[in-house]
Amino acid sequence: MAPTGEEAPLDGAPLTIAQLAEHAGVSIATVSKVVNGRLDVAPDTRALIESLIRRHGYRRKRRAGDSAPLLEVVFHELRGLYGVEILGGVEHVARDHNLGVVISELQGRHTPGRGWFEDVLTRRPLGVIAVHSGLTVEQSDQFRSRGMPLVLLDPTGDLDDEIPSVGAGNWSGGLAATRHLLGLGHHRIAVMTGPAHMLSSRARLDGYRTAMDMAGVPVDPALVCVGGHRIADGRHLTRELLRLPDPPTAVFAGDDGQALGVYQASAEAGLRIPEDLSVVGFDDLPMAEWNIPPLTSVRRPLKEMAVAAATMLVTLSQGEQPPQRRVELATELVVRSSTAAPRATE
Amino acid sequence: MAPTGEEAPLDGAPLTIAQLAEHAGVSIATVSKVVNGRLDVAPDTRALIESLIRRHGYRRKRRAGDSAPLLEVVFHELRGLYGVEILGGVEHVARDHNLGVVISELQGRHTPGRGWFEDVLTRRPLGVIAVHSGLTVEQSDQFRSRGMPLVLLDPTGDLDDEIPSVGAGNWSGGLAATRHLLGLGHHRIAVMTGPAHMLSSRARLDGYRTAMDMAGVPVDPALVCVGGHRIADGRHLTRELLRLPDPPTAVFAGDDGQALGVYQASAEAGLRIPEDLSVVGFDDLPMAEWNIPPLTSVRRPLKEMAVAAATMLVTLSQGEQPPQRRVELATELVVRSSTAAPRATE
Repeated sequence: MAPTGEEAPLDGAPLTIAQLAEHAGVSIATVSKVVNGRLDVAPDTRALIESLIRRHGYRRKRRAGDSAPLLEVVFHELRGLYGVEILGGVEHVARDHNLGVVISELQGRHTPGRGWFEDVLTRRPLGVIAVHSGLTVEQSDQFRSRGMPLVLLDPTGDLDDEIPSVGAGNWSGGLAATRHLLGLGHHRIAVMTGPAHMLSSRARLDGYRTAMDMAGVPVDPALVCVGGHRIADGRHLTRELLRLPDPPTAVFAGDDGQALGVYQASAEAGLRIPEDLSVVGFDDLPMAEWNIPPLTSVRRPLKEMAVAAATMLVTLSQGEQPPQRRVELATELVVRSSTAAPRATE
Repeated sequence: MAPTGEEAPLDGAPLTIAQLAEHAGVSIATVSKVVNGRLDVAPDTRALIESLIRRHGYRRKRRAGDSAPLLEVVFHELRGLYGVEILGGVEHVARDHNLGVVISELQGRHTPGRGWFEDVLTRRPLGVIAVHSGLTVEQSDQFRSRGMPLVLLDPTGDLDDEIPSVGAGNWSGGLAATRHLLGLGHHRIAVMTGPAHMLSSRARLDGYRTAMDMAGVPVDPALVCVGGHRIADGRHLTRELLRLPDPPTAVFAGDDGQALGVYQASAEAGLRIPEDLSVVGFDDLPMAEWNIPPLTSVRRPLKEMAVAAATMLVTLSQGEQPPQRRVELATELVVRSSTAAPRATE
């Protein structure tokens, strides 16, 4: 048979290593290297075998001892207390199953690069949890074709229906935060979001809009700020808001980091929280409680989300299906001291 | 030979698996299970074999592919930004060597329990980094006898001379922080330390004492506070200090978390930082910069310390000796806005 991956797909079951070798016109050892993530294969040969796997499918025979007692967690970025909460949850499940937790970081990239993928295959974990990051369709396919389970935790983008995921009720959180501020008597409520391409940001913003709409309060576009999830973003956006002719009396920040930036800019401007400006955060990381005054925030149960994702992964690795493949855990407004009624003079 | 581990030590080289089996009167397979951390061995047999290994020594033949491409990090407690800094550094070195980083957490215990040790042996990493924790002498011996390198990062107690370690200049940091406050004109300087059994706390306190002594300022025992490294500790200790007839005008806190507690208690008492109270932290975690006002702190280069420890471990795993086995990286005072001269009225 001619060594080409460009034929029409075959019917029937995924190919064995021997069949893949025959189709590609290479040795079984070469195919074995590719499916196990080894790098000592010529790029053209590797591409040919990968394309055969993509088109015809390959399913590793799962044997006892075939995978290592490891659970792989890949972070978009390992920064701040967000990562600590997630790791705490994963570690909890891993300990119960005597699994090691392997972490890797994409250094701010949302999609893992090529080297990462080969390293994971070499380690042969039970499965992979991708935190706040996406995989390319090609990468998801490669995991699938090798029978390695994948779970998305706090996914950022549109979801591939076939990949299990664990998220939080972002829309409900946005609704609850805004209703809390409306209930205190605020009407000039600013909202800060993360990047516009992130569905989680969109969901929170939509919750804000619905709360405002249901209260009959028009949304002023000047009070809708799109930024990044950094403290500096919260600081810069607040400086701009405070320069408006009619500045907001309350800010619903995109996360606790942005909210800290609101605190900093308020201190610069000599404004007191909550007397002059009310602030609500999102996530309710431990730092929310440390803020002076302690921050009212929408709690995302990050640790419980991580527990759910890791449990799902263990179930999948045992060849079973989890009870649900798409889980969204509820958010909850935690009221502390950063929110109060607007001043009577307004 | 009678199956007992109680004979006099043999001279010469460490025993092979076959010799261990002969001494213990068990099969080679059983010894192999014990040295590889498998749990399906009767407790008495396991104890006998471990005692033989301790007394006579056992050295695994290191072959290529004998250990997994993993680097193991065990945390006393994975909490706050300290862990994130450490992981960032380890991850950096691991990436360069295509190693996975496995993390485990002792949940506040300073010494790993038995289950952890067996799990590590099963995973067969290149080596282990123990962060802010100690191992029992028995555990250190077990790693040594199996040829698995161990490096202590930010060690807490007295050091076994044979175990490589990476720490920071705690004494110099205590000296620099105290001299900074003395230079601003403070004399009533309180100091907060971590638990008294931790050598790192002792070293910082000694640095404080030397700075005071060299400036001819007597140390008031009422201003020396021993606590834990938690925000709440800083808060409680500050409340007590502020109740003194002659309260301090400055606090040198044991770490940035304690310093945040000083901020909280000052806010409660209506005191302004730095006008009414100067505060210096230790570590200079990212949160130091976020504080309002930004915190003056002694920077411990945690990320660089982790890089040094991981690099050392990789070197040891290749059967080579690192250039130094006991490394202490320098600390550096970072002056921000939480320190100023005491008020002129005093």
